[in-house]
Amino acid sequence: MLPIAVDAMGGDKAPGEIVAGAVQASEELGVPVLLVGRPDEIGDTHGLEVIEASEVIAMDADAASSVRTMKDSSLVRAAEAVRDGRASAMVSAGNTGATMASALLRMGRIKGVSRPAIATPLPVPVKEHPTVLLDAGANAECSPEWLVQFAQMGAVFATTRYGIQRPRVALLSIGEEPTKGNPLVKDTHKLLATGSWIGETGAVFVGNVEGRDLLADEADVVVTDGFTGNVALKTLEGALRGIGGALIETLTGTPEARAASEPLMPALFDLYARLDPETTGGAMLLGVNGVCIISHGSSSATAMVNAIRVARDQVAADVVGHLSRAVQTPA
Amino acid sequence: MLPIAVDAMGGDKAPGEIVAGAVQASEELGVPVLLVGRPDEIGDTHGLEVIEASEVIAMDADAASSVRTMKDSSLVRAAEAVRDGRASAMVSAGNTGATMASALLRMGRIKGVSRPAIATPLPVPVKEHPTVLLDAGANAECSPEWLVQFAQMGAVFATTRYGIQRPRVALLSIGEEPTKGNPLVKDTHKLLATGSWIGETGAVFVGNVEGRDLLADEADVVVTDGFTGNVALKTLEGALRGIGGALIETLTGTPEARAASEPLMPALFDLYARLDPETTGGAMLLGVNGVCIISHGSSSATAMVNAIRVARDQVAADVVGHLSRAVQTPA
Repeated sequence: MLPIAVDAMGGDKAPGEIVAGAVQASEELGVPVLLVGRPDEIGDTHGLEVIEASEVIAMDADAASSVRTMKDSSLVRAAEAVRDGRASAMVSAGNTGATMASALLRMGRIKGVSRPAIATPLPVPVKEHPTVLLDAGANAECSPEWLVQFAQMGAVFATTRYGIQRPRVALLSIGEEPTKGNPLVKDTHKLLATGSWIGETGAVFVGNVEGRDLLADEADVVVTDGFTGNVALKTLEGALRGIGGALIETLTGTPEARAASEPLMPALFDLYARLDPETTGGAMLLGVNGVCIISHGSSSATAMVNAIRVARDQVAADVVGHLSRAVQTPA
Repeated sequence: MLPIAVDAMGGDKAPGEIVAGAVQASEELGVPVLLVGRPDEIGDTHGLEVIEASEVIAMDADAASSVRTMKDSSLVRAAEAVRDGRASAMVSAGNTGATMASALLRMGRIKGVSRPAIATPLPVPVKEHPTVLLDAGANAECSPEWLVQFAQMGAVFATTRYGIQRPRVALLSIGEEPTKGNPLVKDTHKLLATGSWIGETGAVFVGNVEGRDLLADEADVVVTDGFTGNVALKTLEGALRGIGGALIETLTGTPEARAASEPLMPALFDLYARLDPETTGGAMLLGVNGVCIISHGSSSATAMVNAIRVARDQVAADVVGHLSRAVQTPA
């Protein structure tokens, strides 16, 4: 297997935690890893190969112009490594927009794909597997036909990533009835309801779901435009943080509460970790001609190990080949 | 003060809890209340006046056609009571769409208002007052000009409801930069940034916020279209329920955990109640020519008391007069 190219410079904790995670993945999982970035900042690679890149795209930089002008950036070089057959996949915890732009411009799209979409797994307490939300932010404006492709790609991902053979695909709306929603959702519902898009994906269209169903056992894949998807994803993150913070305050606000809650803390931290999107191994950009894993900006070494494992698994599962066949089915 | 018209037949727990709440509000708060519905089902009114209405619009009925055909429904009669000067406000925990349609068709719009919007208070643990989200679902498709009016109306509501004199108004998007978002958001941002809409509202435009800021101390009013707003609201509700459920399971999963968590339960239930949107006294339909409070479908007697209190306070604060002046300011 070709190595996984890891953007050593991307993420709030780069390069320290990123490199540590890459080394750990290589040693513990036996995954071949390539580091991309500035050798002097990467430091000790523990024997991992390095592709030099002199520039770093900042977390808050404008994505399109950065990728256009910073041709020797770690993100662009990582995407080129996949394009050139030096790597089988890329992983970055850096600037999400620039990661998408690098992958799209250097790897190109899978033939037949209108627009790549970000598929983000949402941890759901009552389900064995996360629910895949897409598009989680790649395309702020979408057409019904693109959303149908997102359904196809999301279904493939649910199978290659979680082994779900007949993924339940739902459309995010503001009511269960097909007549509810904005024009995009109503038109998309009609296309999805025909079922002609399903092809080899084995998907089952279960109709509309609402925001409250994102953490329920209603669907395996939830399709939406990138604006709505990003709002929903960030709202979930904010809710977890807000509720978690208020909970900690309640459990530690008085000496009595602190004493009572102390033995419960390990289980509560476990629960938080289980609900934290960071633990899912990162989102995947579906539709580019290669495996591209987008990790959370705050990724730790452990999160990177998870992301590298997911990248390896998706390469092994030939997700790109499956996506390519899925999108050949007309909507 | 004219009485508050309460739809006795609307809500999952109608008429029992609704009538109980109305009676309690009348006795404990001294608010005059009118019950609207079927006298035989309402039962003992404890002396409250009843406006007879023979029909009931079901919780899941189609809103527009129900209101058109069921002219003797409790919802339509409640709205007529406000229109005809028999009541100062209406309160319903029934079918949200039908409540909006009844209010809009019978009361009409405030002069100058393009579209009424649902303003829903979100309880925020780190803030003294809830954050007002609008539109939470009245208009699935919006224009930038409507969103500017929502900003004006939301600011007025933040002042009349919570006494916030200089409400911070934000636009819900997928990044802080004015260039982020879909075309609706980008165009709205430009209009809001001019500040020409502010007039007497005293509002301050603080720019874009993201979904994760809904439970943070970033804004007092968050403006969005009714599709995105409803998805965000339902996502928050689902997160609270999902996280709450997982938490209860963690705290009661083993005998040891049960024993340790028992003394913490009162504080945890308090916290849940504080975060529960039901405790905020209901949403308000802003822009119709009268006070219309939309309570949660699951409203208990206590929730109805809160909603009736809010209706009374909004009448006393002349919210309709303030809204009318606010929307005369050009965007």
